[in-house]
Amino acid sequence: MLKLDFHRTGNHFLQIPGPSPVPDRVLRAISLPTIDHRGPEFGALGMNILAEIREIFKTAHPVIIYPASGTGAWEAALANTLSPGDPVLMFETGHFASLWAKMAARLGLEPEVLAYDGADEQLPDAPGWRRGVQADLIEDRLRRDRAHRIKAVCVVHNETSTGVTSDIAAVRRAIDAAAHPALLMVDSISGLACADYRHDEWGVDVTVSGSQKGLMLPPGISFNAISPKALEASKSARLPQAYWAWNEILAANQTGYWPYTPSTNLLYGLSEALDMLRDEGLEQVFARHERWAGGIRAAVAAWGLPIQCAQPECYSPVLTGVITPPGVDADALRKLVYQRFDLSLGMGLGKLKGRMFRMGHLGNTNDLTLIAMTAAVEAGLKLSGVPLAGSGVDALTAHFSSLRPDAAA
Amino acid sequence: MLKLDFHRTGNHFLQIPGPSPVPDRVLRAISLPTIDHRGPEFGALGMNILAEIREIFKTAHPVIIYPASGTGAWEAALANTLSPGDPVLMFETGHFASLWAKMAARLGLEPEVLAYDGADEQLPDAPGWRRGVQADLIEDRLRRDRAHRIKAVCVVHNETSTGVTSDIAAVRRAIDAAAHPALLMVDSISGLACADYRHDEWGVDVTVSGSQKGLMLPPGISFNAISPKALEASKSARLPQAYWAWNEILAANQTGYWPYTPSTNLLYGLSEALDMLRDEGLEQVFARHERWAGGIRAAVAAWGLPIQCAQPECYSPVLTGVITPPGVDADALRKLVYQRFDLSLGMGLGKLKGRMFRMGHLGNTNDLTLIAMTAAVEAGLKLSGVPLAGSGVDALTAHFSSLRPDAAA
Amino acid sequence: MLKLDFHRTGNHFLQIPGPSPVPDRVLRAISLPTIDHRGPEFGALGMNILAEIREIFKTAHPVIIYPASGTGAWEAALANTLSPGDPVLMFETGHFASLWAKMAARLGLEPEVLAYDGADEQLPDAPGWRRGVQADLIEDRLRRDRAHRIKAVCVVHNETSTGVTSDIAAVRRAIDAAAHPALLMVDSISGLACADYRHDEWGVDVTVSGSQKGLMLPPGISFNAISPKALEASKSARLPQAYWAWNEILAANQTGYWPYTPSTNLLYGLSEALDMLRDEGLEQVFARHERWAGGIRAAVAAWGLPIQCAQPECYSPVLTGVITPPGVDADALRKLVYQRFDLSLGMGLGKLKGRMFRMGHLGNTNDLTLIAMTAAVEAGLKLSGVPLAGSGVDALTAHFSSLRPDAAA
Amino acid sequence: MLKLDFHRTGNHFLQIPGPSPVPDRVLRAISLPTIDHRGPEFGALGMNILAEIREIFKTAHPVIIYPASGTGAWEAALANTLSPGDPVLMFETGHFASLWAKMAARLGLEPEVLAYDGADEQLPDAPGWRRGVQADLIEDRLRRDRAHRIKAVCVVHNETSTGVTSDIAAVRRAIDAAAHPALLMVDSISGLACADYRHDEWGVDVTVSGSQKGLMLPPGISFNAISPKALEASKSARLPQAYWAWNEILAANQTGYWPYTPSTNLLYGLSEALDMLRDEGLEQVFARHERWAGGIRAAVAAWGLPIQCAQPECYSPVLTGVITPPGVDADALRKLVYQRFDLSLGMGLGKLKGRMFRMGHLGNTNDLTLIAMTAAVEAGLKLSGVPLAGSGVDALTAHFSSLRPDAAA
Repeated sequence: MLKLDFHRTGNHFLQIPGPSPVPDRVLRAISLPTIDHRGPEFGALGMNILAEIREIFKTAHPVIIYPASGTGAWEAALANTLSPGDPVLMFETGHFASLWAKMAARLGLEPEVLAYDGADEQLPDAPGWRRGVQADLIEDRLRRDRAHRIKAVCVVHNETSTGVTSDIAAVRRAIDAAAHPALLMVDSISGLACADYRHDEWGVDVTVSGSQKGLMLPPGISFNAISPKALEASKSARLPQAYWAWNEILAANQTGYWPYTPSTNLLYGLSEALDMLRDEGLEQVFARHERWAGGIRAAVAAWGLPIQCAQPECYSPVLTGVITPPGVDADALRKLVYQRFDLSLGMGLGKLKGRMFRMGHLGNTNDLTLIAMTAAVEAGLKLSGVPLAGSGVDALTAHFSSLRPDAAA
Repeated sequence: MLKLDFHRTGNHFLQIPGPSPVPDRVLRAISLPTIDHRGPEFGALGMNILAEIREIFKTAHPVIIYPASGTGAWEAALANTLSPGDPVLMFETGHFASLWAKMAARLGLEPEVLAYDGADEQLPDAPGWRRGVQADLIEDRLRRDRAHRIKAVCVVHNETSTGVTSDIAAVRRAIDAAAHPALLMVDSISGLACADYRHDEWGVDVTVSGSQKGLMLPPGISFNAISPKALEASKSARLPQAYWAWNEILAANQTGYWPYTPSTNLLYGLSEALDMLRDEGLEQVFARHERWAGGIRAAVAAWGLPIQCAQPECYSPVLTGVITPPGVDADALRKLVYQRFDLSLGMGLGKLKGRMFRMGHLGNTNDLTLIAMTAAVEAGLKLSGVPLAGSGVDALTAHFSSLRPDAAA
Repeated sequence: MLKLDFHRTGNHFLQIPGPSPVPDRVLRAISLPTIDHRGPEFGALGMNILAEIREIFKTAHPVIIYPASGTGAWEAALANTLSPGDPVLMFETGHFASLWAKMAARLGLEPEVLAYDGADEQLPDAPGWRRGVQADLIEDRLRRDRAHRIKAVCVVHNETSTGVTSDIAAVRRAIDAAAHPALLMVDSISGLACADYRHDEWGVDVTVSGSQKGLMLPPGISFNAISPKALEASKSARLPQAYWAWNEILAANQTGYWPYTPSTNLLYGLSEALDMLRDEGLEQVFARHERWAGGIRAAVAAWGLPIQCAQPECYSPVLTGVITPPGVDADALRKLVYQRFDLSLGMGLGKLKGRMFRMGHLGNTNDLTLIAMTAAVEAGLKLSGVPLAGSGVDALTAHFSSLRPDAAA
Repeated sequence: MLKLDFHRTGNHFLQIPGPSPVPDRVLRAISLPTIDHRGPEFGALGMNILAEIREIFKTAHPVIIYPASGTGAWEAALANTLSPGDPVLMFETGHFASLWAKMAARLGLEPEVLAYDGADEQLPDAPGWRRGVQADLIEDRLRRDRAHRIKAVCVVHNETSTGVTSDIAAVRRAIDAAAHPALLMVDSISGLACADYRHDEWGVDVTVSGSQKGLMLPPGISFNAISPKALEASKSARLPQAYWAWNEILAANQTGYWPYTPSTNLLYGLSEALDMLRDEGLEQVFARHERWAGGIRAAVAAWGLPIQCAQPECYSPVLTGVITPPGVDADALRKLVYQRFDLSLGMGLGKLKGRMFRMGHLGNTNDLTLIAMTAAVEAGLKLSGVPLAGSGVDALTAHFSSLRPDAAA
């Protein structure tokens, strides 16, 4: 019988930047009995979810829900709107932006990858992995594409591998300034429902997202929020798609159903999570994340360690990447923290492997859990022989102690 | 907060041919806290699942698990092994075989659809939807394909839309008799872990399956069991694939992981379900389904209504389709039964809409639940004015009363 | 690890007259994390429950909730109000009335047991176990107690061992007619939230109830609803009590707490169940039970078997006892039905052991489940060689088919 | 619908000395469907639990399980063995010892309460509430009871209100030295399955315990482990008992059942918890608690605050009481910590109200959770203006960092 705990006691601290800790309410919702996905109760559930999910993306237009994880929703965004050989402009802000470009190539598109062109003392070989999307580079490239061959601009809102949040509105302005018709596609897999996000206002054509971050669900469902322009583009797109095809899903969604079997029990969880987010209010959700992130950065500053994100205006409210000193293997540190303190940290991905770790501060967590994470990391750093300038735990606790205006009497 | 019951009392009877009723053990397993999909506990879980799932398919070769529903696994089977324009031979046994062919066309393949060429009094416009795959037609077509242009033969093992189970071993023999190199791809979405199935022994190259039938899970994960020959074919296949790509998944699976975020909580459920199936024993699972199916057919016979499947040797152990008399709308009957008795029956799909209904008898059910289903249908038929030859409930109860050798004292 | 299913598939049919089937919503509620029983959240939960539970008893006065099963609440009722040697008048309607009298004796009271004085052909040795409380006998006895030595009249509202529901209002009138000051204590363990019950209107002084019947909870908490008169009596009662002491609990309940650790997780379930009952409406709950009971009696009548309750005006809406023909061991029948059909029936208790069985039709069930129960019993009777006059399943199905005005389109 | 979280995010930290945090496995076990408490599956479950629970008490004799919380098991111990007016010798080590004496009086016994007769500078009015049972005082008193009027000696093993663990073997030796026939009754409600406990070896006659501490269950079931001598005494005891009566329960327990409805779903949880304890091994469980307790005391020492327990040899492995400085209301501190950090601490009970708080470190917890608790308390102390000598968090983290020999690679 399934035992996940390997005979340890107590709760594991899941502090990776997603999957984030799933609330008890959601876990219990997903364990309700599976129903007929073609029956009337399902239709009512579907209609309700499909309406409410729009509020999370801040869109008046359809949101497609896939029984797939986020990578599938990336593929769906491309496959529904583009044709073989289409050039697409990507911006490399980190591992996930890089993987998306790789996928585009794999699907037969022609990705052109822009990246930060400056230097970085801390990470000379990956300066762009410490910074956000540069809208000016995009604008410049689009202006030069007079024939409008480029069909889409693809950027990552919150780069989960680095903890950098880019300014999507600026990208929209850049495209508009270049008067370019390319679609704007945004991966907000880890940004949605943590950091402010506005699909309609920012003129995004396809927003890709997933369940296991700000939505506080287990992984397994993912999203495409689509603009009328993206929908129009899908009519002439020639990349093959079947499972991902928007048109059949949109037709079935009219009455709350899907053309094939949806992930019923995860939709139960989504229904519950949407209720929770609505009850709290999205703006309060964003404020909560900003407050947490500020505290964690104060802790890292107290340690005297560099934050992966080198641009304060791009600090992520979702996660904070911390660069380990030369000679300190971040993965060994993570393993030590895992074994000693039953706490999972995010690993350095791709170019960053072993060079940094990621502290998640998103979703269904709270001040004390983040203090615990900080204490575990601090203890791990000490055990690893890293000299620390000061106590991150003290800095974080002081930060939280000075705030908390929401604590009622 | 999520309420699924609309203030009704008691348990709903989910008697569609999938999703099948999920056992409490599985529901509780999927509600365990989500863990880090890159952590050591996950790797151990993954290794275990990936080993055990092979036993269900009766294969010594890899089984790919997708965070997607069954339709995605169809696409994966085609996308990993074929190239644009490849002719594939499909056999239309019903709605799902038909949909798979439609998908093949949508993906840029050239499906050629074989079908039963005889007549049927009961359903003159859909004679093939009452019968199994005709291996002789396949053999004949393959013999004529001297240039070996046909790259794959795609058939459905247990056609969920009709309740017809085809002889897969016979298809294998037909391909061999024609000495044709085409891959054999089989959809056993609703057959697996209900009806006998032997991926290796029957020489299947790709078996497609899903979670929500014999595996007794909610929908949301699906499978490709793959032969060495299929794996070899995947190296030269040129249909674009990224999310579905076997190679990256197989590489990550070596250590129990996935290249992107898997559907962690449904994998918990899979682990639990695999334990249950192993505890019971697959042969006992198959015997149980045969026993149930025999009883349900006795009930339908007692009513004097025609079974959708016209070939006794192809009767499905998973579900039984029942054709309603002329003038009796099967969907109105289903609605009546749903409203009066809180029981969901499967609808007639595609060509069969309104003309038949499907009684599921699979997975986590038992004798008395099937008697209840039969009683509800019988009452619904009477309320709909259908003259019945006799009591199906009595026939079924007598059937079960005469058996049950497994009931210990 | 806990496995309850012994490798069977499907859901067990729990058709005993309590514990009744617990709704999924309640099961999930009781699995929420235990909280501090002295913290503010608990106080809010407690206040809410203590207010809402009064509606179920139809009382404006306090209801005590014990972390104990129903037998404990019996003891509490006696121990809080009476003194050693106090005569109490009990009325033997069946096994549970009998056990309560036995308990009174064990606690040092002097129970005097009245019983039906007529004859019964079917059960000559237990005529009273087929009938309700005779208020006239009580009135008569109380009139003769001119010294008012009798301190309490104890009766069972719905006798779970027989399926007989007594007229409590009539008992009240009898006491009043005799102008006797005795307290009226009523066991409505299996009646509450199934059959109409009115603590205040009927002038009951202490109502004893439990969680595992109409309240649809697991066993483990129980109740004393108390009148001002009972509360007054408790001040001079001299039976020792500590755990059961009303006064300390009432004091703590003022702010939503208990003097000792309450059964927190079952209180979660109670909160959920109270919501469900309120949403449905108590009168609708009663109507639903009456409707079910009518159907089951129609089935028993069709079989031609005698109902345990010999007085139609006392038929229980909660359960129906069925007397097996001479020579047919009801327990062997129950065992057969359990083994063949995974269905639990209530056994004959005390004097009725082996002579009857009890069919529960209460709480979280529905029409089709009751049809299934009837089919299982009918099959079991046939397998046991009992000649049946007709089909109970047909009678019950026809009964339900003719009703169901609540089924919306 | 039940919402316990009041819209907060993250998990509450339940750090009171019971109820302790319930493991997910146990929560899911208690949410399994309720079964027939008279059916064969229940009997098998009951037999298994009744056998395994003995191992926890380290007894070869019966353990009674009550559907009641711990206070009920106190009453049961007294009511089954004693007669009205019996003198019982109690030893006041804190609030719970005091409450047990109060209960004895309420039940009609004659408790004589011994207490520490020395002085204490820190708590001059409650010196005994900082110390363990003094076996010499008991021996002395028993020697003086030449007529053997005293029928029982009642002591608390782990005093939950103070964090003092008494030496039960020494009490046994004291009784033996006095050659006195009194029964030895021990409350190990919060000690069992946390601190070493040996019912048989220490010659305890009745051990009282509960579910919500070391057994890691929700509250609602409780225990009497009974010696042959206690059982013999019960035959002549004359305190009234019915619900608590050992004899009827023991008779029914022979086949795994109870004479009245047991708390089925909590028994599921008990079954699961027993499995977990057996898997880990009791000695390892004790070592784990000692290790935690040592760390927490190091933290309190670093703060420079006095520990409630003044005798190092009686330090509790279960909880640590901390005395707040004069002028600092411990309840205000607890409230502040609750509001700011979603963490519940134990309150000062009885004489200690407002003067100390209790940090629980028992059951299903782990190092990092205890660090989090310490951080929250430390922040709360600072916010309350308490001058601290040093960092408790650092001391605790260093303590844990230096240990953990069980962490495998």
